[in-house]
Order: sequence, then structure tokens, then C-alpha cells
Amino acid sequence: METTAAFYVGDRHFTIEQIDTKPPGPGEIQIDVAYCGICGTDLHVYLGHMDARVGKHRVIGHEMSGTVAALGEGVSGFEPGQPVVVRPLHHCGQCPACQRGHQHICQNLKFLGLDTHGAFQQKWTVPAHTLHHLPDGLPLSHAALIEPLAVACHDVKRGRVSPGDDVLVIGGGPIGMLIAMVARQAGGTVAISEINKNRIAFAQKLGFATHDPADGDVAESILKATGNKGADVIFEVSGSQPGVSLMTATAATRARIVMVAIHATAPQVDLFQFFWREIEMFGARVYEPQDYEEAMELLGAGVIDADAMITDIKRLDEIGDAFSDLAGNPEAMKTLIQCGTEA
Amino acid sequence: METTAAFYVGDRHFTIEQIDTKPPGPGEIQIDVAYCGICGTDLHVYLGHMDARVGKHRVIGHEMSGTVAALGEGVSGFEPGQPVVVRPLHHCGQCPACQRGHQHICQNLKFLGLDTHGAFQQKWTVPAHTLHHLPDGLPLSHAALIEPLAVACHDVKRGRVSPGDDVLVIGGGPIGMLIAMVARQAGGTVAISEINKNRIAFAQKLGFATHDPADGDVAESILKATGNKGADVIFEVSGSQPGVSLMTATAATRARIVMVAIHATAPQVDLFQFFWREIEMFGARVYEPQDYEEAMELLGAGVIDADAMITDIKRLDEIGDAFSDLAGNPEAMKTLIQCGTEA
Repeated sequence: METTAAFYVGDRHFTIEQIDTKPPGPGEIQIDVAYCGICGTDLHVYLGHMDARVGKHRVIGHEMSGTVAALGEGVSGFEPGQPVVVRPLHHCGQCPACQRGHQHICQNLKFLGLDTHGAFQQKWTVPAHTLHHLPDGLPLSHAALIEPLAVACHDVKRGRVSPGDDVLVIGGGPIGMLIAMVARQAGGTVAISEINKNRIAFAQKLGFATHDPADGDVAESILKATGNKGADVIFEVSGSQPGVSLMTATAATRARIVMVAIHATAPQVDLFQFFWREIEMFGARVYEPQDYEEAMELLGAGVIDADAMITDIKRLDEIGDAFSDLAGNPEAMKTLIQCGTEA
Repeated sequence: METTAAFYVGDRHFTIEQIDTKPPGPGEIQIDVAYCGICGTDLHVYLGHMDARVGKHRVIGHEMSGTVAALGEGVSGFEPGQPVVVRPLHHCGQCPACQRGHQHICQNLKFLGLDTHGAFQQKWTVPAHTLHHLPDGLPLSHAALIEPLAVACHDVKRGRVSPGDDVLVIGGGPIGMLIAMVARQAGGTVAISEINKNRIAFAQKLGFATHDPADGDVAESILKATGNKGADVIFEVSGSQPGVSLMTATAATRARIVMVAIHATAPQVDLFQFFWREIEMFGARVYEPQDYEEAMELLGAGVIDADAMITDIKRLDEIGDAFSDLAGNPEAMKTLIQCGTEA
């Protein structure tokens, strides 16, 4: 059967191709993809930063929603037509990390949509263990936010945000904004540090206090706002040296820093402050199954303003424009690609 | 009453002075100091690195043991002649850290022997709340190790070392060596990474596996020794860029790094590895009261080889020689100053 798929072919280009889909194999499920959001990682692929990992003929995309199309041999618990999302992690089960119950950071982890073909296509076949049932009544467009929202749930869990905590999110992009919303729901008093004026306005519209480093010393403002205590939980989502400097300058004694950003170079870190204030830091990567469950609950409960987050929706055959628009647009938050023929 | 005190007077010099001692004030206790060890921080003072903090007429020293000499007004629970040690931390009780129960890292902490006069003198007067009774039968020379041993107990507690953990101590100086002994007692399989041949030999004599970066890639050796898992708990005690690089290179998924060293400059840290393996890091500074209790128990139980650790004992009037010897001696571990007239 022929379907349509968008292939990243290197150097900011996609081709739209008609391909033959095989039926799902044993243990697999085939999905009719409805929507797939563009992740920051997908943008890195588009810009050519990850060719060594993904190659130059790869269907990418992993922030998806859809419905079950067909079940492979031995698969149960799902029925054609059911709305689902995929947790795009395939672990080995054998390495020391898996043996200790950390399958989500398996030492041989395959990330679906990077290390395998992804969801920027009409039909996507994945291991059945990666699927989550969607709750009734959740629009499939909103459900495409579940993957990044699960990242935020995982991050907030790693930071153990509790009622009364002063929380600082450094970097107000899509993930930072979702972290802020989840941390607020967990009882934190959340501020966001951001340099982009459009994102500052977006954060304020969602009700968050904001700090712009261009307007003065952010650490000083935070200390003043917290009675000389500092922030209890800090999410470093900027991936920048100024962000890394801010995270230690603004930390309370025994503060918990969550390292969300992907730092391609090793920045300078004020380790003296770690010693002096007994600061704690927790790396946080992707999500565990319960983070997906929590993300679906929060989305269903209306905690996340999905309509505000989704700033654009484009068709699969417009994927090239969608990426080039997003790469240069400071007002965008989340762009979805509509992969199916109907909403 | 006249007694003898050693004053740091700047630029690698001490003067021995006869001073008048006042009786202890309300809430204070005066101690006949028996022994006081030379800490790495004291060496920094001696080398002139901390003049801005301590000035140039300061009695330093805080790794001490002694006996109660006199009680100030309103002090109970101690009697003259009782053997004691001092936990040299005076907190404000008012700041956010104190209010949250973290008095040991009080935001206005006074460290006795740096911010006030210390124990390199015959009689030392301190707030009564800083004293711990010594258990019977512990030699006062050994008891001078309780302060650095409490540091090690605090560090191991921060790293939550548990039976079966693979532990790496980066830096085999006195604190690194004590951490290694406490971590082994907690059930860890402990290795030490160290560049100084004398310290490597010392560590091996105490039964520890050692890694010398000069002999090959330490991270590779650790991964090989742990079935490609890495170390579960890592103590960074070197205060060096190579140590900081090693701590991330050798970490297992979800490893716990304890930041013990005082990093005067901000080194480059591979934050990508924190993200990728969800590494955790915990700053650790000084100790809490229970760390002193644990240190006394471990010392009493013979877990720490005190005689091996104490590599020299000198008289108070030899303090200048003691510091200059220690500064240039790669074989030294811990030098004690005998402050009293008898052992």
C-alpha cells in the first residue's frame, strides 16, 4: 500500500515521497499519524547538525498523535481506530542502566524518529510497547504536545518541585514554558528568565513573572524577591554559558538544579557555589512511562494552555516551509505538521 | 592568666606570643587544647591566599582535641577535665538557611579558627554549643582527626553510599583518604585516583585499588572494572580540571557525584553527560552534629587507621617548621600540633 512520507535529505531539505508500507511485524503496531510537532532536536537535524547520527534519507519526527491502523502478530491490548501516542524510546534491556530500571536512559537506547524512521509520514510502524492509549475527548492536535509535556513532567519530577518552592526556569522556549506550567501546577512560584521579547510577552500572558537579563542582574532580582534566600529549584533550559552562570548565582542553599539543556560544549560552572551552598544538580533526559501518564492527565485537566502553545499547523507537503519558518521566527512556540488527511 | 598562642602574621610566618586569657563569658567554655591538626585550609592561610578573610594577626587551627578548662555563666552539661572536641561552626539562627535547618551552611556562618581565633593556642574559648563529649578511651591525638573525619562522614552521607556501590575518590589527600575509609565502611567498593606516587602507595597500603592517570585512561579502567557501568558514587576532591573531567567520564547512569573540593576558578564541566546519563551532583561542605557523632563512633571502632594518618606531631613553638615541612612534603598526610604541655 502506498503512503506519503517526508524524508530529511540533508542541508535544510525534505523530499515528499510515496513509499510502500509493509504490514506491522510481530510485536509491532502500525499507526495512522494525525499530527507531529517539530521539536528543537528536529530543527538541529534540519540545520545539518546531526547528519552523522540520522544520515541523509531519514523520516524524522516523534512528537506525534494518531490512531491504531493495524496490529502485528502477538500484539494485544489495542484495537484499530483507538487514539494513541508513542513514547519513542526503544531500550535494549541488557545494559547496566536497563538492569537497574533506568530503561529510558538505556546505554544502547534507540530514539524512534532519529535512530529509526519517525512520524513525519502518514503511516508509522513502531514496537507495541511504546504506545499509550489516549484518554477520551482529547483533540489529536493537543495530544501532539504530550511528548514534550512528558519531558517537562520528568524534569519537574527530577527537581521534586513542592508547594511553596521558588522556581526559576532559565530559558522560555517550548520546553521551558511547559516546565513552568507543570512546576506551577506542582505548587511552585515560578519565574522565567528569557532574553527574547516575544517569549517574555508569551510567558507574561500565561501569568508568569519574567526576568530579562538585559534589564538588570537577574540573580539580584531573585534574591530580593525571595528575602535573600534564592531559588529552590532551577531549570537550566537555555544551553548557554550565561544560563549556566545564572543557575549557580541564583541558587538557595541546598537548591536543586535540573539540567535539561543539551550543552554541546562544556561550559564553565561555578563549582565553588556547589560546595559553599551545598547545591544539588540532577540531569534529566526524556521521560519514563509515568511521565506520559501524568502529561495526559495534565493536558486532559486543562492545566496546559494547548491552544496558546500551538502557534502554527501545516500540511505534510508543506514541511520544508514549516521548518524554514520556524528556524527564523522568534514568535513561534510549537508548529505541528498535520500528517493525516483529516484533523 | 598568661598562656601561649601562635599567631599567623602574614606571608608564611607565625609568631609565638604570651597572651592574657580572660575567663569564658556567658554561654562559653574554655578548653585546654591538647592537639590541633593542620588542615588544607590552614595551609592556604599560611601561603597568604586568605589574608582578606583572616587578616594578619590571627590564631588559626580548628582540627582540635582537648579537655574542658572552665565553664562560663549559664553553661551546663560539661565538667572541667572532660575530654572534648569542637565543631567549629557558629551560625546566626536567622538566615533562610538556618530557618530551614541547614545551620551548618548558615548564610552568615562564622568558622572558628578563620573568622575568629582558633586552636593553635593553649587555651581556647568557644561557644558551648560547639562542643562534643569524647567517648572514653580515645587518645586525644587520634581525636584531633575527628573534625576532618566528620567532613568525610558528611560527604559519604551526601553521596548515600550503599553496599555494592562502586565508588571512586578523585584525589587521595587526607580528606580523600578519610572519605575512602568511610565509604568502604558503608559497603562501597572503593578505588582512588591519584597522581602522587607516595599517596598511591599509602592508599594501596590501606587496601584500596588505585588509578594513576599517568598510567592510562582512568575512565576506561573504571568502565572495564565495572562491566561498562561506571562508578555509582564519585567524590571530586582534587579541585582540578582533570579531576572534574574524570568525574563525568567515569559516571554510571544516575551516578551521584559529591563536590567536596573547593574550586577557586570555575572549571569546564561536561554538562552533556549530566543530561545524557542523568548524573546527579551534590555539594558538600563541613558537617552537621550527627557527622561528629558518627566520626567519633568510627574512630572508636578502629575503622580509621589513625596512626597511619598522623604522619608527624610537632610542638606549638615549632608551628612554623611544621607548616613549611608540610607545604613541601609529598609523603605527609596529617601533621598535628601538640598545644598542651603534656600528651
